Parts: sequence; C-alpha cells; structure tokens
Amino acid sequence: MKLTIKEVAQILLKHDKFEILTHNYPDGDCLGCGYALCEALQQIGKHARVITTDLPKRFVFLADNVEEQEFEAEYIVSVDVADEKLLGCNKEKYEGRIDLVIDHHGSNNIPCEQKYVDAESAAAGEIIYELISELGAVMTRSLANWIYTAISTDTGCFRYTNTSSRTLRTAAQLLDFGCDFGAINKIMFETKSRRTVQLEREILENMRFCCSDKCAIIYTTLEMVEGMGDDETEGLASIPRRIEGVEMGITVREKPNGEYKISVRTTDNIDACEFCKRFGGGGHRAAAGCTLHGTLDDVIAQLVSAAEETV
Amino acid sequence: MKLTIKEVAQILLKHDKFEILTHNYPDGDCLGCGYALCEALQQIGKHARVITTDLPKRFVFLADNVEEQEFEAEYIVSVDVADEKLLGCNKEKYEGRIDLVIDHHGSNNIPCEQKYVDAESAAAGEIIYELISELGAVMTRSLANWIYTAISTDTGCFRYTNTSSRTLRTAAQLLDFGCDFGAINKIMFETKSRRTVQLEREILENMRFCCSDKCAIIYTTLEMVEGMGDDETEGLASIPRRIEGVEMGITVREKPNGEYKISVRTTDNIDACEFCKRFGGGGHRAAAGCTLHGTLDDVIAQLVSAAEETV
Repeated sequence: MKLTIKEVAQILLKHDKFEILTHNYPDGDCLGCGYALCEALQQIGKHARVITTDLPKRFVFLADNVEEQEFEAEYIVSVDVADEKLLGCNKEKYEGRIDLVIDHHGSNNIPCEQKYVDAESAAAGEIIYELISELGAVMTRSLANWIYTAISTDTGCFRYTNTSSRTLRTAAQLLDFGCDFGAINKIMFETKSRRTVQLEREILENMRFCCSDKCAIIYTTLEMVEGMGDDETEGLASIPRRIEGVEMGITVREKPNGEYKISVRTTDNIDACEFCKRFGGGGHRAAAGCTLHGTLDDVIAQLVSAAEETV
Repeated sequence: MKLTIKEVAQILLKHDKFEILTHNYPDGDCLGCGYALCEALQQIGKHARVITTDLPKRFVFLADNVEEQEFEAEYIVSVDVADEKLLGCNKEKYEGRIDLVIDHHGSNNIPCEQKYVDAESAAAGEIIYELISELGAVMTRSLANWIYTAISTDTGCFRYTNTSSRTLRTAAQLLDFGCDFGAINKIMFETKSRRTVQLEREILENMRFCCSDKCAIIYTTLEMVEGMGDDETEGLASIPRRIEGVEMGITVREKPNGEYKISVRTTDNIDACEFCKRFGGGGHRAAAGCTLHGTLDDVIAQLVSAAEETV
C-alpha cells in the first residue's frame, strides 16, 4: 500500500501509545526523526517513546523536550530503518511487529503493509518535517533542532550530492523557526575528542602511498583504537580520499577476531566494487569493502599489489 | 547615497567597459562575485574584466566562461572589498578611482559616492545573485556555479551563523539552475594537498596544552611552511578550537622578519581581544590577534603564562 504523507498523518492520528524504532549505530537522521516525531506526538496529546540502541553523547542535549512516559505500546513505527536486521539488539523484540515504516532508503525491505518510503529525500528528516505539519503539531524550536540535525548530518551539511533544492528550502524554514543551527553544526561537524585528534595524527604518520601516489592506504590497529567509541572513529575512511591526487583511498581496520575490515573509496575512474570482489567483497562503484586475514603487513602487501594492477 | 539593487542595475546598464576589483588573498566570495558579474555584463553585451591579485588553482576551473576582452576601462566596480588597502598590489593604480562599491561588510570604508553595502548578506554573492536578475542576464550554469562558490565558501557551506534562511533559499535556487554544487564543495571543503596533510600532522605532533587542557597552542615555523601557498595554510587557526574541551586556541606563525603572528580563537567565556591587548594586539571577542618577538620557545612561554592568568 503506497501512502501519501496526509494518509500517514491520518493513520498516526487514529492510534496512540507509540514506540518509534531507530537503527543501530544511530546517527543524526534516525535520532532526529525519532525524537522529533515523538515530541510532535506528545505535543498533540499522544503517548510516545523512542526506542534506540544508544544515544551518543553529542545528541543528548537535543533530547530535553521529550517526556518519559509510562505506557504499554500499541503501535510500532520505524524511522530511517531500511532493514529489520538494523534494529540491532532490538531486533528480536520487534521483528515482524512494525505497523508503519517511514524511510528514505529506496532499498527498504521491511515486510510491513503500511510504508511511506521517499527515496528523493536526502534525509528521512525531510519526510518528518512534512509529517509534523500534517499532524497539526506546532513547529517548536526543539522540533526544528531535531529535524535540522537529521537533515544536516545526512547531507554533510548540504555538501553531498543527495542535497536537493527542497532540502535547502526545508532547512531555510527551520532557520526561520529559530533552530540553533550554529551550535548544532559546531557539535556535529567541528568538535573532535583529543583522542580522535591523536588517532588521526597516528594514522597520518603511518599512511602509505602507492600507484604513483594515486592510492593512499591508512590503517588502525586494535591498540590504536582501544577504548574508543564508534562515534570517535567514524569518518576515518574519508581521510585518504581528501588528499589531492588520490583516486583510491583504502582503510584497513584490525578487528578483534584476527580479521581486517577493508574500506575502499574511489573517484570516478576506478571501480571500488571490482577491486573488492578480488577479495570476496563487494559494494558500490565508489565505496566498497571486503575482509582479509593475516598479519597487518601481509594484508597491506596484498592490497598494494592489487592496487598496482588496478590503478 | 544609499542605492537599491534596482538602482545599482540601472547604473551598470548605463555604463560600459567595466573593471571589477577583488581583494588580495582572493577567496571564493570576491572571485565568485567578480567573475559572475563579469560574465553577466558580457552576456548583456558589455565589455568587462576581473582584476585580481591572484587566481588560486582551485578556482581556475570556474573561470572558463569569461571571455578575455581588449578595451580601455571606463567604469570601476569593487566587489567584497571593505577597504582600499585590501586591493594589495592593485591599490596604487585604483585608489580613489572606484565608481561603484558592492559589498557585504558593514565596516566598508571606501570613499565612493555610489555604494551598495548590505551587511545582512552572509556573502557578497547573495547581492550579486539579485543583481544578475535585475540586469536582465540569464542565470547560466556557470553563473550559478560562481555564485554558489561565493556563498558556500563564505558560510563554511552553510555551517556558520552568518547563514540566513535567505542564504539557503538563494542556494536552493542555484541548485535549481543546475549548479555543480557537489564538485564545488568537494574542491572547496574536502581536498587538501599532500603537503597540507603533512603540515597538519607536524602541527598536531607539536601541539601543546595548558590551563588544564582548556587552552591548545599550535605553531608553524618558516621551515614547516616553506614554499607553500596561502591557500595551503589557510584554515590552520581552526585546528585547536575543534578539539573537544578547548576554550582558547592559539596559533603561532613564524614570519620572515623574526616576528611571530599570533591568532587567538575563543569560545563564549573568554575574551580573545582582551587577551591580545596584553601584547598590543586586538580584534573581536571570539577572534583576535597580536605580534610577538623572540625565540619560538620564549613566545610560547609568554602565551602560556598569559593564558594561565586568563583561562
């Protein structure tokens, strides 16, 4: 059943006692959607809570306006969750129980009768923005803050090509509603822990180049990232490809089980997916991955040798 | 004489043979404004050229659609130039000769009868966007590219608090005109030379903390930046303040004459201007500067000691 945003609002208005599911390793988009929808539902007199595997520290300051409510859930909504597998530790409890899916991943495969999936939206937050006005909720500053966070984080602050003119117009309206975009952007895009800065320094020290400097390889060992949260190490894979002239950036991460997770990022000329298929992996043309075993030196030697044949 | 944007357009339509002045160490905003205005004037049958002290490499790909024309200049326009001093090596030739000022710096002090200064614009590019439609020029993709470059670079891609909802709406229209915002943002915000990456690594290696880690100090020596262009070292001053918990970031740059240029960036609690006044400098509350002499170690020791009294 293909719903319109008006129909989604009508469905929500008919129900009460909502649980809103987000995906594991939660990011600004799923949290922004979850908390904004929760606050809007509470505002119009419904009961609602957000179910998440985690609330990373940098998002905590945004969650103030959501009230903790006691109730037995009657209606389950997922936001920004493309696949039930991504519910993480909440999968067992909620698998097969989702009543309404709201998402922007064209690949959404959750088996659910009522789905609103708009792959044209850069962030699921764009959908929630429209939904909130259809629900008859007032756009408060805290709602605007959550939706701005959703949209700005999923577009790299409007840098990435998923950004559309509608995305920018929605953001313009959020500024008019008084959202604290300066503070949000500083936290989401500019603040790094001292440990992350130290890790980046170590990574740059050990960066290797091959293929006449068109390929750059970085790595992290378990020791280098010991005790660090995922939000402190995310974004590392973008380091090599930022360097002028680099057409293929390879990130090698040691994992606890003796495996090495490889992420490959390429520019237009090189097929990252083809490269990773050599090692039993796959992905997209510009971003792909695979898993290797051996010592770090072996793994890097294998990658260099394959790169020399590719680039 | 306070002009409207319509009047600015009428003035330009009455004249021909334009030279458009930009400021020294040219950035995306002044170049974007200069080349966009030049292309628009050429498009409506005028003669025009941009006068700049330099065209940094990362902007070259945008300048394709401006035709080189031979003519004797009759009318001089400055864009994004707050002070004639900022004309750099073109100051001597053009000082006192500017016929029309277009700018977004409230502090603009160019002595000129005809001025259009709109301090509400995050970038002078927002003014040029409106002007182009008043001139009756067609918004081509290359015009959209220049204006997008102007606006995105002056707002840190819409991250900084100078961004307004109008800024975002203007950017939305530029996307609708087909501007290559993905490619532009990649070049302006993501690409670093290998040398810059190496310099950042050295800077992080030598970073010092004081005041219980609330103050971070970085430095560059002449040796560290030898042969590097200004566009490879700009943005260094933002490194320390990006670190979580740092409230005062100090950047020390060795200069050829034995001087050290100090840049201080602070968060809300600390007055950078007061700090720099101790050393005969000044500036704004959140960003200020001063000049010190001595050996690098002496200079840093003086800064640490003053910081311990301030933070």
